[in-house]
Amino acid sequence: MDKTVGVLGGGQLGRMFAEAANRLNVTVKILDKEDAPAKKILNHPSHISGSFKNSASIRELSKGCDVLTIEIEHVDTTVLKELSSQGVAIEPYPETISIIQDKYLQKEHLKKYEVAVAQSMKIPTGSSKELEMVGEAFGYPFMLKSRREAYDGRGNFPVKSDKQISEAIEALKDRELYAEKWAKFRAELAVMVVQTKDSTLAYPAVETVHENSICKLVYAPARNVSSAILKKAQDLAKKAVASFKGKGVFGVEMFLLEDDTLLINEIAPRPHNSGHYTIEACPVSQYDAHLRAILDLPIPESSLQLREPAIMLNILGGSDPKAHLKIAEKALSVPRTSIHLYAKGDGSKGRKMGHVTVTAPTTREAEAIIQPLIDAVDVISGSKSSSSTSQPPPAAAASQPAGTSKSPQVAVLMGSDSDLPVLHAGFAILEKFNIPYEHRITSAHRTPRWKADYVSSAKARGIKVIIAAAGGAAHLPGMAAAYTPLPVIGVPVKASNLGGEDSLLSIVQMPRGVPVATVAIGNSTNAALLAARIIGVDDERVGKLVEEYAAAAEEEVMAKDAKLHAEGWKAYKWP
Amino acid sequence: MDKTVGVLGGGQLGRMFAEAANRLNVTVKILDKEDAPAKKILNHPSHISGSFKNSASIRELSKGCDVLTIEIEHVDTTVLKELSSQGVAIEPYPETISIIQDKYLQKEHLKKYEVAVAQSMKIPTGSSKELEMVGEAFGYPFMLKSRREAYDGRGNFPVKSDKQISEAIEALKDRELYAEKWAKFRAELAVMVVQTKDSTLAYPAVETVHENSICKLVYAPARNVSSAILKKAQDLAKKAVASFKGKGVFGVEMFLLEDDTLLINEIAPRPHNSGHYTIEACPVSQYDAHLRAILDLPIPESSLQLREPAIMLNILGGSDPKAHLKIAEKALSVPRTSIHLYAKGDGSKGRKMGHVTVTAPTTREAEAIIQPLIDAVDVISGSKSSSSTSQPPPAAAASQPAGTSKSPQVAVLMGSDSDLPVLHAGFAILEKFNIPYEHRITSAHRTPRWKADYVSSAKARGIKVIIAAAGGAAHLPGMAAAYTPLPVIGVPVKASNLGGEDSLLSIVQMPRGVPVATVAIGNSTNAALLAARIIGVDDERVGKLVEEYAAAAEEEVMAKDAKLHAEGWKAYKWP
Repeated sequence: MDKTVGVLGGGQLGRMFAEAANRLNVTVKILDKEDAPAKKILNHPSHISGSFKNSASIRELSKGCDVLTIEIEHVDTTVLKELSSQGVAIEPYPETISIIQDKYLQKEHLKKYEVAVAQSMKIPTGSSKELEMVGEAFGYPFMLKSRREAYDGRGNFPVKSDKQISEAIEALKDRELYAEKWAKFRAELAVMVVQTKDSTLAYPAVETVHENSICKLVYAPARNVSSAILKKAQDLAKKAVASFKGKGVFGVEMFLLEDDTLLINEIAPRPHNSGHYTIEACPVSQYDAHLRAILDLPIPESSLQLREPAIMLNILGGSDPKAHLKIAEKALSVPRTSIHLYAKGDGSKGRKMGHVTVTAPTTREAEAIIQPLIDAVDVISGSKSSSSTSQPPPAAAASQPAGTSKSPQVAVLMGSDSDLPVLHAGFAILEKFNIPYEHRITSAHRTPRWKADYVSSAKARGIKVIIAAAGGAAHLPGMAAAYTPLPVIGVPVKASNLGGEDSLLSIVQMPRGVPVATVAIGNSTNAALLAARIIGVDDERVGKLVEEYAAAAEEEVMAKDAKLHAEGWKAYKWP
Repeated sequence: MDKTVGVLGGGQLGRMFAEAANRLNVTVKILDKEDAPAKKILNHPSHISGSFKNSASIRELSKGCDVLTIEIEHVDTTVLKELSSQGVAIEPYPETISIIQDKYLQKEHLKKYEVAVAQSMKIPTGSSKELEMVGEAFGYPFMLKSRREAYDGRGNFPVKSDKQISEAIEALKDRELYAEKWAKFRAELAVMVVQTKDSTLAYPAVETVHENSICKLVYAPARNVSSAILKKAQDLAKKAVASFKGKGVFGVEMFLLEDDTLLINEIAPRPHNSGHYTIEACPVSQYDAHLRAILDLPIPESSLQLREPAIMLNILGGSDPKAHLKIAEKALSVPRTSIHLYAKGDGSKGRKMGHVTVTAPTTREAEAIIQPLIDAVDVISGSKSSSSTSQPPPAAAASQPAGTSKSPQVAVLMGSDSDLPVLHAGFAILEKFNIPYEHRITSAHRTPRWKADYVSSAKARGIKVIIAAAGGAAHLPGMAAAYTPLPVIGVPVKASNLGGEDSLLSIVQMPRGVPVATVAIGNSTNAALLAARIIGVDDERVGKLVEEYAAAAEEEVMAKDAKLHAEGWKAYKWP
């Protein structure tokens, strides 16, 4: 694309940005130390060796670049402002970077634009008197934070009671401070926002999980959060970013409180750890989007959507300088996992050395796949032991085998073993189509609680369709439908003198709001075929088998017709 | 991972291989000319400048490498064999490369291992006598091919009749030749195979489309080919590759004949153009797999599966040296499209300058998305004009809007406009859930042919579920089910003195083989909710809405109960 971009900083973010730029043939010049990770994949002699805080080096970098950008906000913004006034294009604007690099100013700015943020308070001198005032105003615990140069938990101190005030002052001495009210959140969310010359676009809202104040996991999309809240999170993030000047991607971290309120925690004016997942999970990654935004190249909004749910796990350094490589090696054996190492050399405790991203058709599957790797990380980081004392994995992951392709997709329920013969033909179809299924006897009337538990958890266990057979009062299909959002297929069984019509009417005549897909009396073949059609809507393999089944049936009837045509009705034997 | 790999050749394949190696911190040294594309993203001083056919350069490259590999098979294998005998690890084996680089020997080798290949014949001296013998044996047309150094159509000559023999000899003079029987194929397929130290794995079978003998498009998975044949193609490719010694990925191109026979066309002992799509579409790309295979690192088989269907389009150079950049620029605006430019500088006619990959939930959607880009390529390559004389796009793509998110997912059919009032409640649900739908009047008895056409094409148009309402004899739902593999939901309409029971029984009592998901009489609410449950199986947004709907219904009943409990039955007003 014949453009040159200068980047202040050449760490892993700069490196992944360079990957995206390489694919578009955009030249990237890095200002950072000689062996910076980003420089290793950019083979040209025009990089600048030095610090992104050094004004002379920044001036040097700006020469011959079409636009300057940053991979870290802790840069010298005075010289950036000066260069900007001389006509150098800098994205986002230096004034944006300087507001954001001071977390207190950042929050004051957002408040001015009526963006919901965690409550904060200036601490003029850092005296214990001032901290006592904060304690009275916010209550304990509250967060004491450095205004600048704080990240990955460094520069923060949670003050749990007034007795900790002197300890907190000692820990953060010589820093400009402010305080934040403690946010009791039920989840931390993050949204990558792209600001272009004429619009503000958002990636999906994701869930971030921190350990020791360092991002550990990112779930895209966020788990256990309604779509309405995810949408609100995107809107809040867009509103926040739109208040800043300049183009590029911004990482917006926020708290989701117990009452479903959203509060901005903080904003990064650059690609962000919570957006790494976009490399695999979205057609245009956050790095590609940043590049396009600062160069005024188009970004189709649908390219920011997920291909599949994804989970990102950071690979941090451990006590052993090669500890991170053990995680990466283990990740090589984990299905559906893409690995990124940052070429930073030896690791040190807590340093970000790489990450992995798992993508899968559902979050559940991704969780089950990544769990062994999380366990390995926990052992190496020392947060958990390798023995059986480790925390149990999430329930869904535990009950789901890692090789998810064989986990059941159809649950076939019957109210009584007397219904079993009716279902034989259906099982044969499921096996013919190689659709994994499970079959259980669970009576609406005799095991009401177990049935409720079983059906309620079906979706979480990866079941896609439920088939329920019942006769007589035949409540099982309807009661199953009442406990699950999955499609439920009802098979009326002839179980009384009424020829099955009693079962049929009991199954089909469900009240508005709770549908049961009813098939003909005793016709489990059609129930299984209907399940196959449903699964085949998004599963091309099964969709094709449905078509092949119809083609075979057509041939069979055509052959019979040919025979009848040839032999005449007298010779034709039936059955 | 602390390993060094030496690569003979540094074109686009070497460059994409280097991308994968960079992510795993494996050092890659390239032997090629100074400004080779791969070297541009590998910033270290140990590359070798020279030709991958030069034995001294190859020896130089081998120093300090853990393993040598190739990105092109036209290398000096004599020196490779010598190095191998001295203990240098070379993957795949030099003898494999030397068999494959001679296309005639390649075919003889495959025949020896009983792998189905296109019929071929040696041409000892290249005399017209010999060519006449080929014409007699194979018939016309036949393919005259160079045994070595032939690619992208160069070195091939289709001999259409004996009158062309002298022209063919002139065109391919000074080359070692062989002849191939003309293969009347209905599609060209390709499979990337990974040979590791202890197993042979395959990526999906894809369809390749060539224009002027150069690969233009790759469809993953192949279109209009049954899953049984796709599986056979994978098996054939694995069998072929397993006959060669050494590790790494191999590209296997084959013909699918009119009678569904598969024949190997040719094999490349390296990453291949037909596997570019794996970068976006699979968790482990062909480049990542090649690296892992030659370094004995694990490759989980499920990581070779598709995340989503994908289409790859090559960006070739045009007459104008910047023509390829116009395509790339246009691609920036195309949704769900990832762009790869190879940093080769100015383009020339037919040179591979880059590629794009579109991924989408279905092949249909990917086709619709990429069509404008194919049109643009056709205009620039001069193969088609930009006016309305251009070939019509595939029917499915044409009838599908490019912004596919709004294309209908549910088709609601009614046999008569008298059924419309019954459906109002269902439409309201679809709109509440923001599920795009279309609604048509099409009678099983009065418009039998239109109904058949309409339903037959529904799946191709992106419809996922059909709802059909009918009364009386009520044949519409069952007749719809007979024409589509999609799930069909039947809504019995009360249309006679029989209270709707006639419609119900007509809809629900379908014969084995053709299921209709029947809901209660007149209950279109449940039909729409069932459609939502079906779509929600794989669409997390819709799945969540189904859960929210149930939660709201629960709250509503709870509120009524609270009111009844508080007021007592005398005060409670109903309705």
